[in-house]
Amino acid sequence: MTVDLEVVCVGNELLIGKVLNTNAQWIGKCANSFGISVKRITVCADEVREIAVVILEVLKRKPRFVIVTGGLGPTFDDKTLQGIAEALQQNLVVNEVAFIMVKEKYAEYAVKRKVTLGEMTAPIVKMATLPQGAKPIFNPIGTAPGVLADLGETVLVSLPGVPAEMEAIFEASVVSLLREASGEVCFFEKSIYADDIMESVLAPLTDVVMQDNPLVYIKSHPKGKENKPHMELHFSTYARNTEKPEERLQKSAVQLSVLIEKNGGKVY
Amino acid sequence: MTVDLEVVCVGNELLIGKVLNTNAQWIGKCANSFGISVKRITVCADEVREIAVVILEVLKRKPRFVIVTGGLGPTFDDKTLQGIAEALQQNLVVNEVAFIMVKEKYAEYAVKRKVTLGEMTAPIVKMATLPQGAKPIFNPIGTAPGVLADLGETVLVSLPGVPAEMEAIFEASVVSLLREASGEVCFFEKSIYADDIMESVLAPLTDVVMQDNPLVYIKSHPKGKENKPHMELHFSTYARNTEKPEERLQKSAVQLSVLIEKNGGKVY
Repeated sequence: MTVDLEVVCVGNELLIGKVLNTNAQWIGKCANSFGISVKRITVCADEVREIAVVILEVLKRKPRFVIVTGGLGPTFDDKTLQGIAEALQQNLVVNEVAFIMVKEKYAEYAVKRKVTLGEMTAPIVKMATLPQGAKPIFNPIGTAPGVLADLGETVLVSLPGVPAEMEAIFEASVVSLLREASGEVCFFEKSIYADDIMESVLAPLTDVVMQDNPLVYIKSHPKGKENKPHMELHFSTYARNTEKPEERLQKSAVQLSVLIEKNGGKVY
Repeated sequence: MTVDLEVVCVGNELLIGKVLNTNAQWIGKCANSFGISVKRITVCADEVREIAVVILEVLKRKPRFVIVTGGLGPTFDDKTLQGIAEALQQNLVVNEVAFIMVKEKYAEYAVKRKVTLGEMTAPIVKMATLPQGAKPIFNPIGTAPGVLADLGETVLVSLPGVPAEMEAIFEASVVSLLREASGEVCFFEKSIYADDIMESVLAPLTDVVMQDNPLVYIKSHPKGKENKPHMELHFSTYARNTEKPEERLQKSAVQLSVLIEKNGGKVY
């Protein structure tokens, strides 16, 4: 069994299509490469109740990890921690460690910009105000810390929406958690490409190869137009290195290639 | 009240980060431009039960529209219509109109590729096999028709995952449904850009302007690094043309610009 994870992306800008959701792809690719299976991605609005509802729905499904992105900043529409607090029925409290993290960032900026450090205003303190029981995660390149809540069955991690900050915190502090949970299982993949074979002809061939190779998942991705079919065939498996995953993929790729060529397709 | 819509994207390739979810952005941008409010985007796996569960959850929230993408093709992992049928407790039946659409596509390919039209194999017939009561939507550039199920409170539209096919069906047949539902309401937006002001300083200024302009939503998008802050300020509103939405946006943009400059920021 693979360890499972869900992603929740908070942000009206994603719903109105102003911003492309590269965070979900980045997290999916990264987590999956460590053998973690991403079960669902949910994008929701910057509304406290909506965030709380989504988090509660995710927690009911009991994934090992939930990664939430967006809504940790100082402005009024950064509501993720309010939503998480509501879902967990916890109060929001100023976290001392988070407060020091945020204050040190402002002290650094003041030095860099050669101004005196102003007072810690409400929007600044907001970034250090976490659901009771949650812990801040150091943000190497921005101000708002990430937030970790260990809920027993599920570990919830909340990260900023700015991709560079999300990635920096993820790499510095989240990757190790995922790796520890997944043990030695990793994701392995291989693609072959086929011309001159339609997806409807390919379908029963793929079925045969998947039946013969139950640990390998094969997905066809049509790339050309239907009257000049060009297909990527993507083979993937979760395995330990000792289980020879490359051989497993290679065996099924060869079997499918032979079948495609028998049916008039070209493989390369 | 705006008309609401949810998006469901089916595909393991989206969960493992192999493919960036441009479909959700495209649909969000398009629907939103017609004044339709996108409430949630859900990405789920190519599994019948999972698709059915997601669809049932969406239908419970009673959006006016659900747009589903992916999983309409001929291969074994194209399971969207099975999932929808399970959710709606309908049988899957060969739809005569869909069958003619699919058969005509194959006849066209046969002519173009100068081969004789083969038999309509099971994977081909699968593309014309819809949940009972659903209707096919003509696919101008691919084989698998889109599918429309009018469920009363909610209209469910299922489209292929290949972006060009999804967009072609959407433009030809879905846009008119959305426009009719939303009436004359459209989405209007405007951005201004600010330098030398941190998000934490900006936050209370934005609050003031939003209080004075309750129909305008303002969201700040940090673009620079925190020690050299650069900010996009995005103003948006849903309105009829007769309600002078541009004036509404302009008024709040001017008000916020003045406040930013009073606080040492530069606006351009």
